[in-house]
Amino acid sequence: MAELWNQDPRTALRVDADFDLTALDRSSTPGFAGGKSEAKSLMVAHGELLSELQERLYARGRTGGDERVLVIVQGLDTSGKGGIARHVMGMVDPQGVSLRSFGVPTEEEQAHHYLWRIDNALPKPGQIGLFDRSHYEDVLVVRVDELVPREVWEPRFDEINEWEKNLVDGGTRVLKFALMQSYDEQARRLMERLDRPDKRWKYSLSDLKTREKWDDYQLAYADVFKRTSTDYAPWYVLPADHKWFARLAVTEILTRVMIEMDLRWPAPDWDPAEQRRLLAETMSSELLAESLAETRGVVQEAIDAGVDVNLEAIELLTARSNKTVRNAAVAEVKARRAVLEADLAKTLADKREVLESKSPELAEAYDEAAYGKGKKSDG
Amino acid sequence: MAELWNQDPRTALRVDADFDLTALDRSSTPGFAGGKSEAKSLMVAHGELLSELQERLYARGRTGGDERVLVIVQGLDTSGKGGIARHVMGMVDPQGVSLRSFGVPTEEEQAHHYLWRIDNALPKPGQIGLFDRSHYEDVLVVRVDELVPREVWEPRFDEINEWEKNLVDGGTRVLKFALMQSYDEQARRLMERLDRPDKRWKYSLSDLKTREKWDDYQLAYADVFKRTSTDYAPWYVLPADHKWFARLAVTEILTRVMIEMDLRWPAPDWDPAEQRRLLAETMSSELLAESLAETRGVVQEAIDAGVDVNLEAIELLTARSNKTVRNAAVAEVKARRAVLEADLAKTLADKREVLESKSPELAEAYDEAAYGKGKKSDG
Repeated sequence: MAELWNQDPRTALRVDADFDLTALDRSSTPGFAGGKSEAKSLMVAHGELLSELQERLYARGRTGGDERVLVIVQGLDTSGKGGIARHVMGMVDPQGVSLRSFGVPTEEEQAHHYLWRIDNALPKPGQIGLFDRSHYEDVLVVRVDELVPREVWEPRFDEINEWEKNLVDGGTRVLKFALMQSYDEQARRLMERLDRPDKRWKYSLSDLKTREKWDDYQLAYADVFKRTSTDYAPWYVLPADHKWFARLAVTEILTRVMIEMDLRWPAPDWDPAEQRRLLAETMSSELLAESLAETRGVVQEAIDAGVDVNLEAIELLTARSNKTVRNAAVAEVKARRAVLEADLAKTLADKREVLESKSPELAEAYDEAAYGKGKKSDG
Repeated sequence: MAELWNQDPRTALRVDADFDLTALDRSSTPGFAGGKSEAKSLMVAHGELLSELQERLYARGRTGGDERVLVIVQGLDTSGKGGIARHVMGMVDPQGVSLRSFGVPTEEEQAHHYLWRIDNALPKPGQIGLFDRSHYEDVLVVRVDELVPREVWEPRFDEINEWEKNLVDGGTRVLKFALMQSYDEQARRLMERLDRPDKRWKYSLSDLKTREKWDDYQLAYADVFKRTSTDYAPWYVLPADHKWFARLAVTEILTRVMIEMDLRWPAPDWDPAEQRRLLAETMSSELLAESLAETRGVVQEAIDAGVDVNLEAIELLTARSNKTVRNAAVAEVKARRAVLEADLAKTLADKREVLESKSPELAEAYDEAAYGKGKKSDG
């Protein structure tokens, strides 16, 4: 399905030096050749991949790893920020996700530097953090509403770049998404909130006041893109008149970035064979024999599933690379599979040995079931 | 599908005065007549219902409502607490969920009363909070490991009851689930964590030490159930050798409790008609006409979907009630539908009037499309 993208979404949507917000068609789907139904299928497929990658990130965080991901979502009212939280983050284990939304600063927050509340909300190791609005409000609403003079907000662009650089250097991937809907589409969505009794709670009396300042916000956003899209923390500008496209784009870019993190399962700093022996002491021989009989199937299935994830990841990232690059990546996955299968063989031998020490009869029965009657005499 | 439960799961699983933990069959599925595949289908169906109810709870919280839900999950290592977070909470909008897990207290936490860190983690209005472990650790591990003497932990039962009573009186529903697996099943699951390279990160060297104290924990849990299962915050003890059953049971009980909260969409304290007029001033006549043309379909669909949710909820709660009770509930839903449809009629009339003030031609075209050519002359 990767061919639905005729360009890597990270390239198609990233702000570059020539970016011109005024020229953006907000109902377009840059780089994507499919429609809504293709987008939904792709999202389900890559959502599963994303979920796998997220579990690895989480596992690494739980065992001393320092990597984390921060997804920043900006956009005006009704642009679909909440839908990103719900439909993209909703695809992964909620235990590994930290959602934060930033409204008008509280009194306590106002008493601090504008980055103070942001610092306090950063994802922990192994987490994907999602910010619904962020420190960019301090160069957007703060600028448009003239809450502070230009000489205060203007230096913030450089300050934010420096702050994000530190974050990235410390092991956090920073992804910034701007959901850009058209002026007409916003009216349609606000009207729907007014019309539907189950959506009126989403409407705020301040929405129209913000809408009045539409042009000022567009200028402020254009400056944000120009001044704060960096190599280490680029902006992706998503045309957002089609909600399905914005959701797909975030899923696709996040998935690709997480693939590039090359997340592997953490290795324990203790010996599984020793723990297995200790655990076996608390088990009956029958229970251990039962567990041994299931081991090959269970572990092989897990290895195969992991290999599938890795191959799918390679396919996604090397969709436009030459065959040599792809073949090298596939060969590495196969080498890793061989290591895991050697580990499985050792696991089986260890477990069998423990079983034999508890019950030679059950160990023999295992051999017969696993290798057939003739094994011992053949060997 | 409700007939798969031959008893309300809240009754089947709730700790009553006669409850005897030693007699619990941990591979049983009390009250549930189906197997794994029926459980999974039921969970998907009721997960959607739960998600709808959660959105209403969230909407109420965002508009001044005070209701919240706290789900406490307790259980020993490998009992499936994380699976509840992932598979039950994973079905609803992550923005409305607050997950917290409680490990060994930090130095700061230890310097405070044991309920301090719990108080700090309570769900906010409109949220469903999930605690993976909780203040019950302070009468479980603390007791088993003799971290404090009996005269310190024993009074905590009463203190916890009082604290939970205050919580409930303040508008929080408190649901307590204990996942009770068998001793053998724990060994099987620990062994799998040792065998699978992708699960080893879940294993901890302390797991076997805790397992050694299995009997002490069972006694401590039995006392927890005896002393802290109250009318306002009952314990549900879930046999957890089948993970699918424990997940289903939490989904089913949570859904029923949220149905009983009778969550309705909050009504705005502003006038939609006035906001609509103001919004229309920022729209072209053509855009407004387009929006008007879609209104009936969009709003009617939302009304119908809401009615379906309410009817499904009634079916679930009155599965074992008599026909009179059910009919009364259905009649009330129909009355609420009529109110919403009257609101829709007013919305259509209001919008048409605004359109007429902007463009009599487009208003006339709307009339013709909506009511047929003859309407004006007939009327």
